[in-house]
Amino acid sequence: MSSAIDKANSTLSRGPVLIVGTGLIGGSLGFALSKLGLDVYLEDASPTSLALAQDLGAGKRYQAQLPPPRLVVVATPPDVSAQVVCRMLDSFPSAFVCEVASVKEPITRAVLATHSQHAHRYCPVHPMTGREINGVGAASADLFPGRPWVVVPTGHTGAETKLVMRNLGLDLDMQVSEMSPQEHDRAVALVSHVPQLVSSLLASRLVEAPLSALALAGGGLRDTTRIAASDPRLWNAILSQNTPAVRAVLEDLQADLAALVRSLATNNTSPLGKEEISPAWVGAFNRVLERGNEGRSRIPGKHGASQETYGTLSVLIPDTPGALAKLFQDAGHARINIEDLHVEHSLGQKQGLMTLWVVPSQVEPLREHLEKQGWQLVTG
Amino acid sequence: MSSAIDKANSTLSRGPVLIVGTGLIGGSLGFALSKLGLDVYLEDASPTSLALAQDLGAGKRYQAQLPPPRLVVVATPPDVSAQVVCRMLDSFPSAFVCEVASVKEPITRAVLATHSQHAHRYCPVHPMTGREINGVGAASADLFPGRPWVVVPTGHTGAETKLVMRNLGLDLDMQVSEMSPQEHDRAVALVSHVPQLVSSLLASRLVEAPLSALALAGGGLRDTTRIAASDPRLWNAILSQNTPAVRAVLEDLQADLAALVRSLATNNTSPLGKEEISPAWVGAFNRVLERGNEGRSRIPGKHGASQETYGTLSVLIPDTPGALAKLFQDAGHARINIEDLHVEHSLGQKQGLMTLWVVPSQVEPLREHLEKQGWQLVTG
Repeated sequence: MSSAIDKANSTLSRGPVLIVGTGLIGGSLGFALSKLGLDVYLEDASPTSLALAQDLGAGKRYQAQLPPPRLVVVATPPDVSAQVVCRMLDSFPSAFVCEVASVKEPITRAVLATHSQHAHRYCPVHPMTGREINGVGAASADLFPGRPWVVVPTGHTGAETKLVMRNLGLDLDMQVSEMSPQEHDRAVALVSHVPQLVSSLLASRLVEAPLSALALAGGGLRDTTRIAASDPRLWNAILSQNTPAVRAVLEDLQADLAALVRSLATNNTSPLGKEEISPAWVGAFNRVLERGNEGRSRIPGKHGASQETYGTLSVLIPDTPGALAKLFQDAGHARINIEDLHVEHSLGQKQGLMTLWVVPSQVEPLREHLEKQGWQLVTG
Repeated sequence: MSSAIDKANSTLSRGPVLIVGTGLIGGSLGFALSKLGLDVYLEDASPTSLALAQDLGAGKRYQAQLPPPRLVVVATPPDVSAQVVCRMLDSFPSAFVCEVASVKEPITRAVLATHSQHAHRYCPVHPMTGREINGVGAASADLFPGRPWVVVPTGHTGAETKLVMRNLGLDLDMQVSEMSPQEHDRAVALVSHVPQLVSSLLASRLVEAPLSALALAGGGLRDTTRIAASDPRLWNAILSQNTPAVRAVLEDLQADLAALVRSLATNNTSPLGKEEISPAWVGAFNRVLERGNEGRSRIPGKHGASQETYGTLSVLIPDTPGALAKLFQDAGHARINIEDLHVEHSLGQKQGLMTLWVVPSQVEPLREHLEKQGWQLVTG
């Protein structure tokens, strides 16, 4: 790892940076930018949060006698972001200002409605750290590297402002991309907000299910409902800011679901007494399943590689202390990098099935190596 | 591990057992029952499959001069199960007969329609191994222990037949339960078939999404669409056998989705220019999210424990060969059993976040131990 001084020499951003709001994102930005050697000021409506963030080393409290910030990052809760952005544009007439909220249209509209004369200095950004939790206690400079950093210029954002925001993402070692506010909000509705609601809707169907049915739950139900355990308070704030885009995706989903249910009703006689299967039913299921295959295959894999660029191996894991340790120790001795992994097990199961993703050329060497060590591999 | 002879002494089932169909389930049953010391005969419409299963040690080819089977297990594809069950009831007038198909109503109706005079010797079972793949190549005696074994007696199943099927599940070290065919089919529609379709429907929405949107995909989308990659051919057969029960759950889901979309339409003015949030929208989202929390919490955890009985720890994993190995080695030295784990990472990310589940009393010892070894733990 390079030292703070090395880093500072190659840093594109210049300070001072004022971070308003010292929660998870604000605090983590404070750590990361301080590490880069930038001067970081902090501000927070809560004196306790501010004191904690200072104590943890995220930056120093902003005071009027300090040189004004060159860059202001608004990392407050999203329902007050617009008013804080406006206050910052007023207070620091030569600063570039961004906010990091996860929905962009309502905030940019609110800012432009009253501050269009300053709007060339304002450029929204969205660091997608994938962690929907709160508080500086969870903050870490490691939240950012490799994650998406979306620069979301409005029609009024100046070229220099946009460049400042791109450079900030590059300094944080993030994957920089650019979208309009509308594109951004539609994208997060599709890849984040609607999946959350669909998972919750599916899990809702279990509320009145008999326990005997729930006892049959397997890996598929567990995976599809994992995020149904998310905190409603956090998601209420996100979803209600992006309702029009969320509603549009939900309506498309509703149309697909209605088409499926309609096809299943066309032949309403269940195959009583014989094992005849309605071609209309098979056709309807097949269309949904094949289209699902196609959609799933479009999700980029780790490191931006498509999923097919990895091969998989499945290994049985006994339920004993140290079994996973031994597996990874054995795999480690083969000097093969495991790109991803997934454990599947279900109710009362005494052992799990671990699927390992590796680059294709390493599948056979890893298989041989693990089998030599006595692991039971499952093909399929 | 106990020897075959020890096992045989404590075995409740008696042979010979004829297994018809030597795919994944049939082949695995052959291995498991042979290990228990039972005489296993095999039959398969495909001579190649039969020869392979024999060669792998799943049992011996059935021939007419052998003593007749006491128990027949029909493990054919589901669309021919009923006719094979009927043939077996005719051929072996003193044998107990089961089939292992994953949907029960159409098969039991078909059998009862023509063979009610033999129906006391017929009892469906469903071993839920959670592996939707084909072929004896993947077969393993380890497919069964701890997994659900559902005994599904029809109204005509005799008490002794039911006992034989329960004992078979107990001998396989499975979690034995009992349901009627109707209860069974409704349960698997809810916990298995509809989650598959919902995952496919959600993934279908990605088919026409811009690649820039897909680049923002995170762990939530990956989890909810994981099973959308399942093989349509296998699922077509399962779903089209259980269409009435699947349709009923889909209609409930459709009603919930329609209620949500309706609530989101009640206030159709997006919060233009101000950051006002519609109370109707927040209320609608909150109801879905809270009900999702409740449903998700009802899914039993590993070993039948509810999920709250485990604590979690999140650890940052650098993307270097051997990093996972070292983590598990370090955890192994603490002699703490890791009950479950989940890796989250997203596009281009250079490191992953590994969440470990352990019994609550071990959270703090494991945290201390890992921190001492230099691992970076993330709280939240």
